[in-house]
Amino acid sequence: MRISELVERTGVPLATLKYYLREGLLPSGEATSATRAEYGEAHVRRVAVIRALTETVGLSVQKTREVLQLIDRPEDDLFQTLGSAIAALPPSVTQEAGAEYPRAKAVLAKLGQRYDPGFAAVAQLEQALAAAEAAGIPLDDERLAVYGPHVRAIAEFDVRSVPREPTAAVEYAVLGTALHEPVLVALRRLAHQDIAARLFGAGRAESKKPPAKAPTSKGRSRKGG
Amino acid sequence: MRISELVERTGVPLATLKYYLREGLLPSGEATSATRAEYGEAHVRRVAVIRALTETVGLSVQKTREVLQLIDRPEDDLFQTLGSAIAALPPSVTQEAGAEYPRAKAVLAKLGQRYDPGFAAVAQLEQALAAAEAAGIPLDDERLAVYGPHVRAIAEFDVRSVPREPTAAVEYAVLGTALHEPVLVALRRLAHQDIAARLFGAGRAESKKPPAKAPTSKGRSRKGG
Repeated sequence: MRISELVERTGVPLATLKYYLREGLLPSGEATSATRAEYGEAHVRRVAVIRALTETVGLSVQKTREVLQLIDRPEDDLFQTLGSAIAALPPSVTQEAGAEYPRAKAVLAKLGQRYDPGFAAVAQLEQALAAAEAAGIPLDDERLAVYGPHVRAIAEFDVRSVPREPTAAVEYAVLGTALHEPVLVALRRLAHQDIAARLFGAGRAESKKPPAKAPTSKGRSRKGG
Repeated sequence: MRISELVERTGVPLATLKYYLREGLLPSGEATSATRAEYGEAHVRRVAVIRALTETVGLSVQKTREVLQLIDRPEDDLFQTLGSAIAALPPSVTQEAGAEYPRAKAVLAKLGQRYDPGFAAVAQLEQALAAAEAAGIPLDDERLAVYGPHVRAIAEFDVRSVPREPTAAVEYAVLGTALHEPVLVALRRLAHQDIAARLFGAGRAESKKPPAKAPTSKGRSRKGG
């Protein structure tokens, strides 16, 4: 397709597509003359990925370029490549050399999880735990015993969904990590509202049938709210 | 305590405390003379809450003031007050009058959840779902069947933890919603890394005992990774 059709297919203005081409985010089309190039479905797909990274995730052009390079040329060590790509995602936390992450390490030990101390999410967890503590609502063992397994179940589904082919795997892992996160955040807030509405239920619109519950450790759904 | 001790107790500079006082975020101490005031534990606590809202959550002074007012003077309808306080939290999404939220409504219907269409989280969910769709990774029924119940289990614990007394309830709900969110986000990313490391396990540091799993619908933990 010509670039004019690429504009139509992607809904992205011509000036923006040209910007992506100039910045090396979007590969050139196949030149069919001095002034024309042919674009294909891979370009349509790539534009969607660029939009997601720059517009939704809010990455700079430079970071977007780095992530796209990892997608296009995954290193032999796919696990390493995945780590590098996801490390580019916000929120950025300053990772000082030799920094200790006492709260995060304690939590990860309780969860029995392995981690790479250089992984950005360790510093992110430390910052989040410190902030909750400073505000007087630390993550205690009771809360961790609930958060841990349910987050893990979500994460297991996420990892099972990753395609096998390395390029597709890096692209999926980056987009899935970044874009399903705000879905989960919004779903948690909406669940809070639904649960609180049922608790304060008197005088409100009639209750619907309660939603499906994740099974308890006894293996049966508890009845009632 | 004098304001100098409040500086020590809170770790916040004197100029900042005076700013909080001027902006009406921090109530005045009890005047013991024309130039001196006495502060108490409630002031220490209030400074921690102000720091959390302005520094960690990133609220403007104006929004912080609004939230603090809801904390201090909860309306008769606690559910309504909680909704207003949490609506002040980021991310802010433009809620246009008469906007439809087709994706969010479809998901909430599948979850059997009630919602207030005016609630900011509905618009946040719509925006998040639309972005995932545009990037080629929509929230399908299979993913929703996993995300839904596990998010709900987390949310049920959150709501059970809310204190009964209205002022404490509003403060807890706001801080808990805002500050445990980045903990959950970081835990998900770390779980991804742990699960992926076990999958790509050959040649890496020896595995630890796998962490506790949330029960499956069969009521038994599945063995293996």
